[in-house]
Amino acid sequence: MKKVLIFGSTGSVGKNALDVIRKAKKDFRVLGLCAYRDIKTLYRQIKEFSPSYVCVRDEKAAMELKKELNRGVKLFKGEEGLKEFSCISCDISLMAITGISCLKPLLLSLKYTQRVALANKESIVTAGSFVLRAAARSRTEIFPVDSEISALSQLLKINKAVVNKVYLTASGGPLLNHRKKELAKVGVKEVLSHPTWKMGKRITVDSATLVNKGFEAVEAHYFFNLSYKDIDIVIHKESAIHALVELGDHTLFACAYLPDMRMPIAFAFHYPKRPSLFKRIDFGKKLSFTFTPLPNKFFPLLKVILEAGKRGDNSLAILNACDEIAVGHFLKGKIEFTQIIKVMEYIFQHYPKSKIKSIEDVFFWDNWARIKTEEYLKK
Amino acid sequence: MKKVLIFGSTGSVGKNALDVIRKAKKDFRVLGLCAYRDIKTLYRQIKEFSPSYVCVRDEKAAMELKKELNRGVKLFKGEEGLKEFSCISCDISLMAITGISCLKPLLLSLKYTQRVALANKESIVTAGSFVLRAAARSRTEIFPVDSEISALSQLLKINKAVVNKVYLTASGGPLLNHRKKELAKVGVKEVLSHPTWKMGKRITVDSATLVNKGFEAVEAHYFFNLSYKDIDIVIHKESAIHALVELGDHTLFACAYLPDMRMPIAFAFHYPKRPSLFKRIDFGKKLSFTFTPLPNKFFPLLKVILEAGKRGDNSLAILNACDEIAVGHFLKGKIEFTQIIKVMEYIFQHYPKSKIKSIEDVFFWDNWARIKTEEYLKK
Repeated sequence: MKKVLIFGSTGSVGKNALDVIRKAKKDFRVLGLCAYRDIKTLYRQIKEFSPSYVCVRDEKAAMELKKELNRGVKLFKGEEGLKEFSCISCDISLMAITGISCLKPLLLSLKYTQRVALANKESIVTAGSFVLRAAARSRTEIFPVDSEISALSQLLKINKAVVNKVYLTASGGPLLNHRKKELAKVGVKEVLSHPTWKMGKRITVDSATLVNKGFEAVEAHYFFNLSYKDIDIVIHKESAIHALVELGDHTLFACAYLPDMRMPIAFAFHYPKRPSLFKRIDFGKKLSFTFTPLPNKFFPLLKVILEAGKRGDNSLAILNACDEIAVGHFLKGKIEFTQIIKVMEYIFQHYPKSKIKSIEDVFFWDNWARIKTEEYLKK
Repeated sequence: MKKVLIFGSTGSVGKNALDVIRKAKKDFRVLGLCAYRDIKTLYRQIKEFSPSYVCVRDEKAAMELKKELNRGVKLFKGEEGLKEFSCISCDISLMAITGISCLKPLLLSLKYTQRVALANKESIVTAGSFVLRAAARSRTEIFPVDSEISALSQLLKINKAVVNKVYLTASGGPLLNHRKKELAKVGVKEVLSHPTWKMGKRITVDSATLVNKGFEAVEAHYFFNLSYKDIDIVIHKESAIHALVELGDHTLFACAYLPDMRMPIAFAFHYPKRPSLFKRIDFGKKLSFTFTPLPNKFFPLLKVILEAGKRGDNSLAILNACDEIAVGHFLKGKIEFTQIIKVMEYIFQHYPKSKIKSIEDVFFWDNWARIKTEEYLKK
């Protein structure tokens, strides 16, 4: 029975992960649950999964939860509590905290877990080489929990030596068929109505701008040591095929499953086993998998992220923070959709180039970008 | 430099194989060429590739060719000559002789070659377990030269232990959209105009009846030790994805390349290398991969072949011979297309069930079926 810590249990990925565990209760024991402040959801999860450890990052929310908890459950509070929670020994850590705040717990947990199921993209985007080096040092496996990158990891087990090119598929998000002019007017609700995936809010907005796809390219670069020129993105609106790998002789391998986040989570939790838990793609009915090239004029932020990835400097940390702030403002109705694009483009043209030499540098530039973005958006 | 023998060099697969060699002349040397009786084509090939050995199965044609040959080339004649030719030591034997007549040279060559590139389906259909046992005894690798089975072999390198199901794709051939009533009237030309593949005549007719797809299922059964219930067939009219494998957790892996016989030949010749020789599937334009279930009422011969496969008796050897004769008659305009179906169904209902205990049994039932088929068709 594998002991699992869930970092970010009340978010979309966290809930899906608990459902994966629900379907294989004899294989896993939930050792710990960690949430930001949604104690209502967390309390329900505690009652169902009886973890030994619970962590609530928001201190006020933690105090409220404390009243409800049994004596047997150890509660960790605030950022200090999160540090201690990250040092609990376990078999699998699911890292599904959103944003840059996942980075420190991830780096800690890498030392105390056998396997990290990593749903957080930002830690790789901002600090990919540090995270992978830390994982190598502690001999901890990282399983990307992301349909495209998980699919790619599975495909690359075939024959990495002769890979020519990889394709990450993109549904194109809810705005694929909008004209450029129409973008300024799109509302939060429209952007959040993703055609194929049910995900958290920020990642859904990032899917609409294709920032998310850019981040996946960065992940592919770090995880599989691929050069950016060998990573292509193609629109595949059915979200059934998640990645393709072209070998030297132009043979293609594709990895497909229904668009359900539980699939890559279950893969990360059960590998090398592959129990049947979720629905199959049904060839008993007519299927169509379509691919169209990325419309070039569109999606300026994808280009920005890929260019930042190639630079390999502080720009990814900066753009990630800028995106987080801008998307937050958009979700609160404070700015228009197109302002996310404008501020990212502006910051990318005006940041002081610098190397990232340490994790502290990541946080420095993250903070710098937050301030600059807020300033820009206030104007 | 690998020494290659080409059995059946003047046929469609043979010519494609020589083109594969033409594109990598420094990797391969054509040690020997073998043809049935098309000495005009064979002579051109001899001039281009300067083999040390040549074999012509038709003795009269062999005598004619002899006049033209240089002294340095050793000529083998007739069936006895073919036996000797099959005993030449080499690195790769491409077995592309059509029909059951490939079986004996294959069994011989397995002892004298490092790798067999096997384009002939009939030897596996009629004598799969004997061929595979002989290959294991002499530690010779067999690389299936057939897009679907080659694709499947590549996919199964991933993770054979947890395979749930495999899908072989079928273009459906030229008659997919015909109504049952229309089948009696279809002519040779129409049947030979395959929508996606350029192949030899018999296999093209077998594609129209789906006998060919049934044979591929038999190949998949023998090569990969798959149970027939785990082999599904699905119509994929683009012939780009050749096979799919579903793992236990319902993750699918697909293998795709442009429908070009040179791809699986090049794979068999170059593996583990994968040089870039032929065109890629181009994601720079719109692509669509469609799948539809097999229309059930249609394609009665596919069912017959699969049922014969499950029986594992002498029926596959019988049906193969029956098909060869019936297709031959159809190609000569002697019988209607639907009579291929009728005679196969008739024979399958009226053969004396028996076990195949030796290669001699294979030939016995092959011969029995030829006589019975001729008798039936004369009526």
